[in-house]
Amino acid sequence: MYENETINDILTRRSVRKYADKPVPEKDIELLVKSAIYAPSANNKQLWHFTVIADDDTIEKMNVLVKEGMDELGIEKDDAFHVFHHAPLVIVLSSSLIGFSELNAGCAVENIAIAAKSLGLDTCIIGQTRYMYQGKDPVDINKLLKIPEGYEHDVSITVGYAKGDYPEAKPRRKNIVDYIR
Amino acid sequence: MYENETINDILTRRSVRKYADKPVPEKDIELLVKSAIYAPSANNKQLWHFTVIADDDTIEKMNVLVKEGMDELGIEKDDAFHVFHHAPLVIVLSSSLIGFSELNAGCAVENIAIAAKSLGLDTCIIGQTRYMYQGKDPVDINKLLKIPEGYEHDVSITVGYAKGDYPEAKPRRKNIVDYIR
Repeated sequence: MYENETINDILTRRSVRKYADKPVPEKDIELLVKSAIYAPSANNKQLWHFTVIADDDTIEKMNVLVKEGMDELGIEKDDAFHVFHHAPLVIVLSSSLIGFSELNAGCAVENIAIAAKSLGLDTCIIGQTRYMYQGKDPVDINKLLKIPEGYEHDVSITVGYAKGDYPEAKPRRKNIVDYIR
Repeated sequence: MYENETINDILTRRSVRKYADKPVPEKDIELLVKSAIYAPSANNKQLWHFTVIADDDTIEKMNVLVKEGMDELGIEKDDAFHVFHHAPLVIVLSSSLIGFSELNAGCAVENIAIAAKSLGLDTCIIGQTRYMYQGKDPVDINKLLKIPEGYEHDVSITVGYAKGDYPEAKPRRKNIVDYIR
């Protein structure tokens, strides 16, 4: 246990890729969404949108779309591949593409990850959902995912209860911090 | 006070633009840096670098560079403008520009912001440091800021003790969350 609960949650958060078959409670979903929308954004523009997906059929449709995109791009994956690791909840972030929109998305998605950790939930940030659009009409996919007109899919995050051994932290790279005192 | 300390820190974090003339303790700096480097990154590549700047002269040099860049671009600012709001500490993030580097930077900088809040410190994420490079040789600026070769400045964040009234949360935009259940 570190200095305080918050820092403990930040330092013990891991990307979790195995989830129990157990839904995320509604009250926790609301806290995750609130945490996301209270992230900072450049000039406080908040030009982001969150689609909270607890519907298995939709999650499976997205998984198929990602796999088709990967096939089209010749990206290898094993037979058991599931882009969302069978998580019970996926949140898709989309943005109006202005300056810093990807940085804003990072802040929002990290808030979700840290908030989830504090609630006993785990997450994995998923960039591969971008492959859904490969060779497809984006209008159809954005309609499926309720992404507003003028917004583009940015990143997604899985949420659920970790199953099995909790992942160890990967080693951190050396020589990535310098000081000017 | 919200559900738990972590969510409380996430929801009560504000961008602070007035700082007391009081340095950030060394032990807190170490926790902020550790929080940053424990952020997730795409494929766990960790191709980021952090320059922790507590030296007033360097902070002032950066401030002048930003203002010169803004002048060159014709961006208005008032006479009292200080890009770092006279904060005692600035952390500069730079990245090797690969896929998702800006998203990664968002996760790392948000970890710093949340960790700082938990330590009684406040922050403001600063994108305007990009203006330092306007009309300048990037090699000189990267040398000043100890940014490694092949890395590019991404974003910076001020850290310090808030002075004066604590900012209220700005209203959140409506209709930015949809559910698929």
